[in-house]
This record gives sequence, structure tokens and C-alpha cells, in this order.
Amino acid sequence: MNTHIFPEESLRRFTENVFRKIGCPEKDAVTAADVLLSSDLRGIDSHGVARLSGYVRLWEKQRINPVPNIQIVHETATTATVDGDSGLGLVAAPFAMQVAMEKAEKYGSGWASVRNSNHYGIAGYHAMKAAAKDMIGISMTNASPLVAPTHTTERLLGTNPMCYAIPAGKYPPVVVDMATAAAANGKLEIAQRSGSKIPYGWAQTKEGKATNDPHALKQGGSLLTLGSDYEHGSHKGFGLSAVVDIFSAVLSGANYGPWVPPFVAFLDPLPNLPGKGIGHFLGAMRVDGFRPVEEFKQHMDNWVERFKSAAPIDAEQSVIIPGEPEIIAEKERKTNGIPLIEAVYQDLNVLADKLGIERLAGEISA
Amino acid sequence: MNTHIFPEESLRRFTENVFRKIGCPEKDAVTAADVLLSSDLRGIDSHGVARLSGYVRLWEKQRINPVPNIQIVHETATTATVDGDSGLGLVAAPFAMQVAMEKAEKYGSGWASVRNSNHYGIAGYHAMKAAAKDMIGISMTNASPLVAPTHTTERLLGTNPMCYAIPAGKYPPVVVDMATAAAANGKLEIAQRSGSKIPYGWAQTKEGKATNDPHALKQGGSLLTLGSDYEHGSHKGFGLSAVVDIFSAVLSGANYGPWVPPFVAFLDPLPNLPGKGIGHFLGAMRVDGFRPVEEFKQHMDNWVERFKSAAPIDAEQSVIIPGEPEIIAEKERKTNGIPLIEAVYQDLNVLADKLGIERLAGEISA
Repeated sequence: MNTHIFPEESLRRFTENVFRKIGCPEKDAVTAADVLLSSDLRGIDSHGVARLSGYVRLWEKQRINPVPNIQIVHETATTATVDGDSGLGLVAAPFAMQVAMEKAEKYGSGWASVRNSNHYGIAGYHAMKAAAKDMIGISMTNASPLVAPTHTTERLLGTNPMCYAIPAGKYPPVVVDMATAAAANGKLEIAQRSGSKIPYGWAQTKEGKATNDPHALKQGGSLLTLGSDYEHGSHKGFGLSAVVDIFSAVLSGANYGPWVPPFVAFLDPLPNLPGKGIGHFLGAMRVDGFRPVEEFKQHMDNWVERFKSAAPIDAEQSVIIPGEPEIIAEKERKTNGIPLIEAVYQDLNVLADKLGIERLAGEISA
Repeated sequence: MNTHIFPEESLRRFTENVFRKIGCPEKDAVTAADVLLSSDLRGIDSHGVARLSGYVRLWEKQRINPVPNIQIVHETATTATVDGDSGLGLVAAPFAMQVAMEKAEKYGSGWASVRNSNHYGIAGYHAMKAAAKDMIGISMTNASPLVAPTHTTERLLGTNPMCYAIPAGKYPPVVVDMATAAAANGKLEIAQRSGSKIPYGWAQTKEGKATNDPHALKQGGSLLTLGSDYEHGSHKGFGLSAVVDIFSAVLSGANYGPWVPPFVAFLDPLPNLPGKGIGHFLGAMRVDGFRPVEEFKQHMDNWVERFKSAAPIDAEQSVIIPGEPEIIAEKERKTNGIPLIEAVYQDLNVLADKLGIERLAGEISA
């Protein structure tokens, strides 16, 4: 497939320009672009600039407020509910993580549940902010309903990711950043494009039958929770997804379950919503609230080394420490640039023309 | 199979007597028995009195201290590290959860990581203590290594459960209490007893090959993480299990990974341990730290009702709300008594004779 490679800085400037153009204040445009670029740098192509035109379409539908008054509406010393005022989740979530970290600085831990928000990018971006300050970071969000709970045919849950970022010493942070579905929708889309089948256990048909058809979702089917079927623990994936939904939305006053507003602008939110926008949950705990930081980091390094040395089944494939592939991708892409597939490249040019801003520039010749 | 049914009170008195006899102070004997009985009442037969003789064998090996000086060794306003002084986890974990709840009462949230402990029973018991006080309860523990990380053949992780208990209004709390392995060892033991095969995806052979043999573990194989294989997200189960291990042990100074001391007394701990005992992590967040309790509970009820009404694949099997089967079991067993399989019944009588205490009494005739 044809790809176009751009230096990080070109993509970042372009992305900031898009957010400026839809009316975001300078600081917010920079933050929102930083969240998206961090996804592209880390190799999570589905959650970076590939979604930029999606955010703009929501803005066109007046479902994203570019100048939100994001504020704390309820709090204790270590907990807070943040109202995102229909702004970008890419801005509301960093605000809320900052609130959590300031509380943790003072009291050892801090927690913020966010309502009235929109898609917040990759969960890992937010949790890693805490890890950079010697805290353990936690980040969750609910999302448009695509996933059916065990034993049912209804899409009642999003792929609802949860992320834990834990600082280490000489090694990079351990970052567990995972959808609570067996596989995210992006993986079905890749199979659709390449015309291949998907493994059984990712999706089911409208009737709840097992399927290997990547188009199942478009035909009224649903994604399956982590565990895939009851025998293999899909009820556990359902439980985790429920926790994400409740922490993000029932705690904050956002919409939950099937009422979470769709990310795609061509689908309208349901009527009679029980809450406001989508919800996130962010948290931070100071490592030195439990033991001295250096001691903790020495043991984290020991933990990482012991797991890295685990006997592999196949000599070619050793254990993957959570977060390690993304670190490798980031190093490589910071040096060699970020590849965009043709469809995303075209989409961004169309977006530039529509908004009347400069097209993507600085393509690196292959 | 032959079963013996006893009223809750008989089993509770017997269990308290066992803990008294090994030297536990009165209050600790009552607490430890309460944790085990809660497991039997909730239908989780593997974690209740069936383990009683296992705790006693650890005491005989002087690996459990019946009169521990459990104390906070490090703290901030909302975080604490608790040293269990080699006592029963059944006592250290309730102590630590109390610490977390008192901090939450004052500051909105509270968190305790525990080192130098032993097996703490079911994760749910501890988390539900918070839910009963209008808090969200969180409970995790690491455990003897039986589970191999994705792509490896080494047992480096326990079945490392995580539990979230969330209060509702007219419905019982939503309690997600799950091993982060695809299936717990108890399920393999059931298959061994009945001579049946296990599903592929629960365990692997010593060489890392897929197997349906329930004896695989005894032959040097290992359990698999939630997700079962890489294609179905076993790296996510590994990530969750890693989080449990790190929160419970790297934060507290307990042993982690392959160094977690075995629960079974016939296996000695490894030499050169990096920490003390096994570790737990307990936490509590006040619901009213985020929104008024009544408002939250109304939305939790709405959440439960919407999920309960999900269209089933098979009309005979509707969605299972996390924690619901255990509530049903508890109601039934409080009324009709707790069934013990013959092997457990015999084991408890042998234990009574060995300790010189009264045998189990009050069997309900079938």
C-alpha cells in the first residue's frame, strides 16, 4: 500500500493548525495535537491524525465546543468531577489528569471523573503524564457502543480501554494500555481493507453466532469482550468494561452503556440521555506514598529484567513487556518520520482544503 | 458425589475454633473465619473452608505467624504501606482495607499496599467492605506462580485476582471479582476429579503447546492469562496480571513474579527473595467524592436495569450482572446451609482430630 512519510514536526504543525482553525485557543490546539501525535509516534495509527477529520465533523455538527469552560464541579481533597463543557476530550482529559496529579502531590493520590467530554485519544497519553512525575497513572474512558456483554446480542459497551502507567528506573515505564474488548474495531477495518478473515472470537453476528467475517459489525453484529466466550472468561472482559463505564460515566454524570454518544458524526446521539457527553476517569498515586522512589524503581527494574528473561516458547518471539513495542515505535518514528496510509493522507488534504489551511508539507522521499 | 450440608453457624464456629487453636487472638479468629465463610456462602467453594487445613499446614511450617504485629510502615494522607508481619492475609487485608477506608472518610480516597502477608481469601470480601459504606472498593493480591506470560513457558505470575465493588441502590453492589488468568486452577482440579478434558485456552504444556489435559499443570505446564492466546488478547491478561503483581508487591515490598511464596506448605519459598511474603492492594473511594450518593445510586440502578434487559442470544441464558450469581448463592446457602464435598468434609475432621478440637457438628440431613 502507498504510504507517505512525514516528520513529526510537520504533522504536529498541521494538526495544531486544524485545531486553531476550528476555534481552539492556542494552548488547547497545542495540547490536542500533542495527544494525537503521541498516538502516531507510538505506532497506534488508529488513534492519531487518522481521526482528525472525525473530530472536525463533530465540531461541524456542533457536538464539540472549541472554547469550553472546563471546570471542577464537585470535589474533596483527593477526588473531583470535571465537566468538559462539550469540549475535546483531548483537552478535558489533560485538564483532569492535571487535577488528579495536583491532588496526589498534596495528599498522596488524586482522582478525577470527567463528564460532558468527547473522545480523548489514547488512554496511555494521560496515564504516562503521571508516570513522568514518579506517580502511577491510571486512565480509562467509555466509548461508542460496539461490544455485546456475554450471552447477549446488544451493543451496550464501547471498547472501553483501561491504562496503567508505572515508572521504572533504567527501563521505560511499564504501560498497560488495552481495550477491554477481545480486539478493537481498527483490527476489523484492517481485515476489511485487505479482504482477509478475522479470527473467531473477535466478533459475533446479529444473532450472536460466532463469525470470522470482518464485516459482521456493519451487518448488525457486535464485538466481543476480552475472553471472547464464556468458557474463556468473556464475563471477565465484560466486568472490566463495566468498571470502565461506571468509573468514567456513572461517577461523573456522563452517558453510559448504550447511551454513549457515537464518535462518528453521521450517527446522532440517542434521545433521553441519562448524562452529558462521554466520560473518562483519570488518577495518580505517588510512588513515594508507598516506599522511597529509588527503592521502587530498583525493584521495577528487577521485575522487568526477570520477565524479559522468561523462557520463550519460540526463540524468535520473546515476552513483550507492556509498553515496550510503543517505545520502540516512538524511537523509530522520531528518527525516520511517521507513515500515513494513502487514505489518511488524502483525507488530511481534503480537510486542509475545506478549512482553507496549508496542506501537509515536508514529505520525506522514500 | 456425596455432600455434607452444614448450617453457616456450625461451619463458622468450627473455623473460628481452628484459628483460636493455632493461637490467633479472639478478634483475629473471628475475622479470619468471616473471610472464609463469606467465600463458602457466596458459592466460591475453592476459597473457603476447603483451604482451612492449608493455612494450618503453613502455620505448622512456621510460615504463618498467628500473633502478628500488623502495622503501617509508611504513609501519606491517602496512601499507606502495611506490613503483615507474616500473619494471615485473612487478617492483614481487613486491617489494610480499614486503613484505606479511614483515609477515604477523611480525604475522599485511601489506598494500602500490603507486604509480608499470606493468602487473603476472596478478593471480593475486602472490596465489599467499602461498598457497604457507599464507597467503591478495590482489592487485588498476587499469588503463587502458576501462569505463564504470553509467548513464554515459565510460570511467573499467580492467577492474580482483581476486584471492584460498586454500590447500587435497590440492586446489590456490582462486584467484579476475577482471576486475571483465563481459568483458575480450581477449574482444572474439578476436571481432574471428574476425569474430563478442559477447553483449549486454559493451560499449556511444559513446551508451551496448547492442551486440553487437566493434568498439564502437574506435568510442568502452566495456566494461560485471560485472552488465552496472543491473537485473542492474552497480552492484555498478562498486562492486568502484571498490574496486580506490581500494585500488590513492588509498591509494598512484598515478593513478586516467580518469587511469590507458594501457598502449599510442601513447596518451600525460593532462596534470595526480593521482598517479604505475598502482597495485596486495597483501596476505597467515596462515591460522594464525585457526586451525591443518591444520584449515583439511581444511575447505578438504571445501569443495572439496562444491562439486565439486554437481548439474550439464547432465551434461557440472560446477561449476568457481575456479582449476581454470588448474591443468589448467598441467599440460598444462608437458608439451606453450605454443602461440603466428601473430601473437604473428611479433611476438616482429620484437622479437628489433629488439633484436638470438636469435629464439625450440626449436619443437616438431606
